[in-house]
Amino acid sequence: MNDPAALRELAAQLRVDSIRASAAAKSGHPTSSMSAADLLAVLLADHLRYDFDDPANPSNDHLIFSKGHASPLLYAVYKAAGAISEDDLLSFRRFGSRYEGHPTPIIPWVDVATGSLGQGLPVGVGVALAGRKLDRLPYRVWVLCGDSEMAEGSMWEAFEHAAFAGLDNLTAIIDVNRLGQRGETMHGWDLDSYADRARAFGWHAVEVDGHDVEAIEKAYGEAEGTTGRPTVVVARTKKGKGVKAVEDQLNQHGKPVPDRDEAIAELGGVRSISVRVAAPEGNGAPHTFATDGDVALPRYEVGTEVATRKAYGEALAALGSADGRVVALDGEVSNSTYAEIFTEAHPDRYFEMYIAEQQMVAAAVGLQVRGWTPFASTFAAFLTRAYDFIRMAAVSRAHLCLSGSHAGVSIGEDGPSQMGLEDVAALRAVHGSIVLHPADANATAQLLPAMAAHDGIAYLRTLRGATPVLYGADDGFAIGGSKVPRSSEGDVATVVAMGITVHEALKAADALAADGIAVRVVDAYSVKPLDADGIRAAAAATGAVVTVEDHWAEGGLGEAVATALVEGGAAVPFTRLAVTAMPTSGKPDELLAAAGIDAVAIAEAVRGLVATPSSEERTA
Amino acid sequence: MNDPAALRELAAQLRVDSIRASAAAKSGHPTSSMSAADLLAVLLADHLRYDFDDPANPSNDHLIFSKGHASPLLYAVYKAAGAISEDDLLSFRRFGSRYEGHPTPIIPWVDVATGSLGQGLPVGVGVALAGRKLDRLPYRVWVLCGDSEMAEGSMWEAFEHAAFAGLDNLTAIIDVNRLGQRGETMHGWDLDSYADRARAFGWHAVEVDGHDVEAIEKAYGEAEGTTGRPTVVVARTKKGKGVKAVEDQLNQHGKPVPDRDEAIAELGGVRSISVRVAAPEGNGAPHTFATDGDVALPRYEVGTEVATRKAYGEALAALGSADGRVVALDGEVSNSTYAEIFTEAHPDRYFEMYIAEQQMVAAAVGLQVRGWTPFASTFAAFLTRAYDFIRMAAVSRAHLCLSGSHAGVSIGEDGPSQMGLEDVAALRAVHGSIVLHPADANATAQLLPAMAAHDGIAYLRTLRGATPVLYGADDGFAIGGSKVPRSSEGDVATVVAMGITVHEALKAADALAADGIAVRVVDAYSVKPLDADGIRAAAAATGAVVTVEDHWAEGGLGEAVATALVEGGAAVPFTRLAVTAMPTSGKPDELLAAAGIDAVAIAEAVRGLVATPSSEERTA
Repeated sequence: MNDPAALRELAAQLRVDSIRASAAAKSGHPTSSMSAADLLAVLLADHLRYDFDDPANPSNDHLIFSKGHASPLLYAVYKAAGAISEDDLLSFRRFGSRYEGHPTPIIPWVDVATGSLGQGLPVGVGVALAGRKLDRLPYRVWVLCGDSEMAEGSMWEAFEHAAFAGLDNLTAIIDVNRLGQRGETMHGWDLDSYADRARAFGWHAVEVDGHDVEAIEKAYGEAEGTTGRPTVVVARTKKGKGVKAVEDQLNQHGKPVPDRDEAIAELGGVRSISVRVAAPEGNGAPHTFATDGDVALPRYEVGTEVATRKAYGEALAALGSADGRVVALDGEVSNSTYAEIFTEAHPDRYFEMYIAEQQMVAAAVGLQVRGWTPFASTFAAFLTRAYDFIRMAAVSRAHLCLSGSHAGVSIGEDGPSQMGLEDVAALRAVHGSIVLHPADANATAQLLPAMAAHDGIAYLRTLRGATPVLYGADDGFAIGGSKVPRSSEGDVATVVAMGITVHEALKAADALAADGIAVRVVDAYSVKPLDADGIRAAAAATGAVVTVEDHWAEGGLGEAVATALVEGGAAVPFTRLAVTAMPTSGKPDELLAAAGIDAVAIAEAVRGLVATPSSEERTA
Repeated sequence: MNDPAALRELAAQLRVDSIRASAAAKSGHPTSSMSAADLLAVLLADHLRYDFDDPANPSNDHLIFSKGHASPLLYAVYKAAGAISEDDLLSFRRFGSRYEGHPTPIIPWVDVATGSLGQGLPVGVGVALAGRKLDRLPYRVWVLCGDSEMAEGSMWEAFEHAAFAGLDNLTAIIDVNRLGQRGETMHGWDLDSYADRARAFGWHAVEVDGHDVEAIEKAYGEAEGTTGRPTVVVARTKKGKGVKAVEDQLNQHGKPVPDRDEAIAELGGVRSISVRVAAPEGNGAPHTFATDGDVALPRYEVGTEVATRKAYGEALAALGSADGRVVALDGEVSNSTYAEIFTEAHPDRYFEMYIAEQQMVAAAVGLQVRGWTPFASTFAAFLTRAYDFIRMAAVSRAHLCLSGSHAGVSIGEDGPSQMGLEDVAALRAVHGSIVLHPADANATAQLLPAMAAHDGIAYLRTLRGATPVLYGADDGFAIGGSKVPRSSEGDVATVVAMGITVHEALKAADALAADGIAVRVVDAYSVKPLDADGIRAAAAATGAVVTVEDHWAEGGLGEAVATALVEGGAAVPFTRLAVTAMPTSGKPDELLAAAGIDAVAIAEAVRGLVATPSSEERTA
């Protein structure tokens, strides 16, 4: 242990550097940094085990700033550790600098992006789960939390799950500086309120004066010595600690201190202390899981009926047999999503997250921090619960596979609360995502390896009901591709569909064929990226396009296709079918008909388009 | 109090009717209903104060099934209360019946849709807040919760806020039947685990045998007699209670009992007990707030610079002065969203929800149940946290106004975690929503009354930075409208923009005009519904379209405009500008330039379009 005076000096440097960084940037959160400076000084000097020269060392501890706005403090810590320079620190928030307003993993020592409050701790739970259950390495996960973010329910999902899983390698540090952005928090300096809640959730809790380095030392030691459950250090601190003009003052959130030089002088001036952070002992190799060699995906016979959600489960189990990095998580619906098939095959690599979709996605993000390939599943409708976590996963440059089952009105009797009808719009609007919605079991199975290989967020939308197998097991499905299950020379229109509506489109094509109207059916199983060229070619060849999707009319297949047509300069008569009225309970067929997206509606739309003279004919 | 034997008979009827309803439907959740039958029998017979003939009676209690899948029990309760018929009960889950798989407010006695777990209690907090702070009526709110949904963080946001607000008019009943959909919950029958957590959060907690009607009576009496804090009744129950084939059995979730007749016989047969539910005493008039007459919206001088978020706050305060039903909520960022201006003007109608966006939206939904008009605000980015609640608010047919500030890369230094870049896509894909993104302060102010009047979900997207006032205070802005701040006879292209990019488009138009290229600028402040006719007319008149938005390329303005063009048969050369790379920190201008959505990029896109011969010219 370093001597208390040295620790206090280090803390003063962290405060001064937080002030300097935000003064240089003319923005940022120095006061939220200053409250936690002592907490970080002690951690850095005496407890963190981290090799800054080798951030990929699997034995490194993990330090996550759940209160991401305290980024000046984090960067001051990096500087004290010798990882970054003075110039780096002072480039804070400048265009082109990797030291952004809130931390992102552009920085090699940052695991995940934070800045949407209430996410760092749930992600920390994921990293700690990886340490215990997958890597089987003794690294610790330290998460600095704000007191304001304790109001987020996701924090309590994390408290619940961490205790349930017995994660004694996880320590949460709550910087109780009393003041939020706009005023006092619900609990002010009532440390008991946090500690009592944490204890009720099964954690070990320690209350400390967050500016007393000796008390902090003791608390961290207690955390390290506690087995069987995680520890929370509840620290009473003052926002802006050490600078009278801002200390414990309202209206000093998120802005530089009023007088930088005066503040630095008050803190005893600029220092250049360098801390030798202890490296982890050894470079322990993470555990690996035995595999069976090449992936043997399930194969389905054309014409049989299989739900795509079931193909997901079977293919995921097969993928897991071939790739030991593949792991699965589910939100207590694994018998609906069929993640249970993976669970049975690979119980050691399955994480039951119960009904806590935010914690599920956060845990998946935490697992991929350590190089695992997570597949997380629930109903498509309930992935909306974790939308902010998915958004932030993209900022984290996470490699994350998601599967949403029970998409659309075709689920039937359960009604609109269970129907994913906005998931394609929401997931398309995630940076770097791919969105896949296959119509049959072979397509589903073949897309899984591509999802696992996609460096970003991959979303698979699956169906509740069994659908006929349309494609052969070797047909080949690629990200950005499409299939044309029906076409002929004389096609006068193209129907672009996905998932369940591919089957409706094929039925419509049969009905139209009986009337001598030939239509092409395009299965746009890759909604993002869309096979724009293929669809434009079909539009050009047939002269008219109908899109049909079991999804709201906004942000889904229809708008993606319309955009591809306009951007390709391919103006053809166009009709878009989608769900526009609030669905109810009913049989799948009744609901597809009521929504105007069944075979009858498609045939009618095609007839409407081909009966109308095209605009060229009109103007001719 | 009814005698225990009569209550047990009533409970048996509720079980039998739950079995009958789901047997008729061949689907549904009878076992999840049977566990809570005693809890509901006692509530209905002896504690609920509700006039089923007058569901609009302001003094009625509120009964919310947070575990919405127990809908057979809810409908059995309605039948026992004489509100619905035998035929109604047996129409469960049929197409055309209002007795859907999960309850929705199509049914007059249902306040809000449930079925996405973890939402009923947070909404109940909102209704209870309305009772205490707005209506000032003594009605009670009873919420039936499942044990599985206690894993949702939103439940703990509700526990936190209800205790903070001292809501002793709220009672949560947890049906601890031990079994989730796929297996046991984290805590099984450990009632203490729930009660201890609730107590730590500041609630009064009572543990009971949930099949002992006398114990339940006592617990409800305790809830009614507890002041200053809410009460939770933690009830140990058995799933499928009373029918050996399913009682406390795994794999009996969400399906009819195997043998209906045997099960009914085991429960003593079909009964036709009718309960006279006590009506509330009197028909108390809810409190109303004094108002100042006609709305006097703020007026801004053309050419001055005002942030649209500030106009939101000022206009909301003005709206509140004219309409006493208008109330506001914010997620601890009211000094950023400027909801604080409303707070200062109308402190009694403001709800500080702290950093708990799910609870904020749920509370707003609860307030509108009682006829209040809530405006809930936070950063656009953080509304994604509540996306499932917004989705469900649409299923609830809620009248809800949302404001998301700090949209897009134009916020600058704070970086991507704080930039709303998917909000337009997400909010457009909500049933019945409108999405508004005004470019100046006068447009913002004038849109607020239209939001308040919209019967559905209205979303307003505002900007962090001050932008020049473009429009007069009497110019008139309507849902579905657009403005053309720049046009001339000789325009050769139309730039369709919204928010910050309207200003960039005007700058681009100036730069292009210097080169003799005249362009029209359309301000599509109403993104949904879009002024499709206006945009098509501009496209036809000018012959080319560029769209530009500070939002991801998916699901936003560009796709909406592209779709309108294709659907209108108006194929013109088209370029779409949007954010496509992950932004960083930087100055607003630097980030707009880096994203390729600033004036320079717009001018370049226009030049690219007008330099290219149109497709007609090519083919001519």
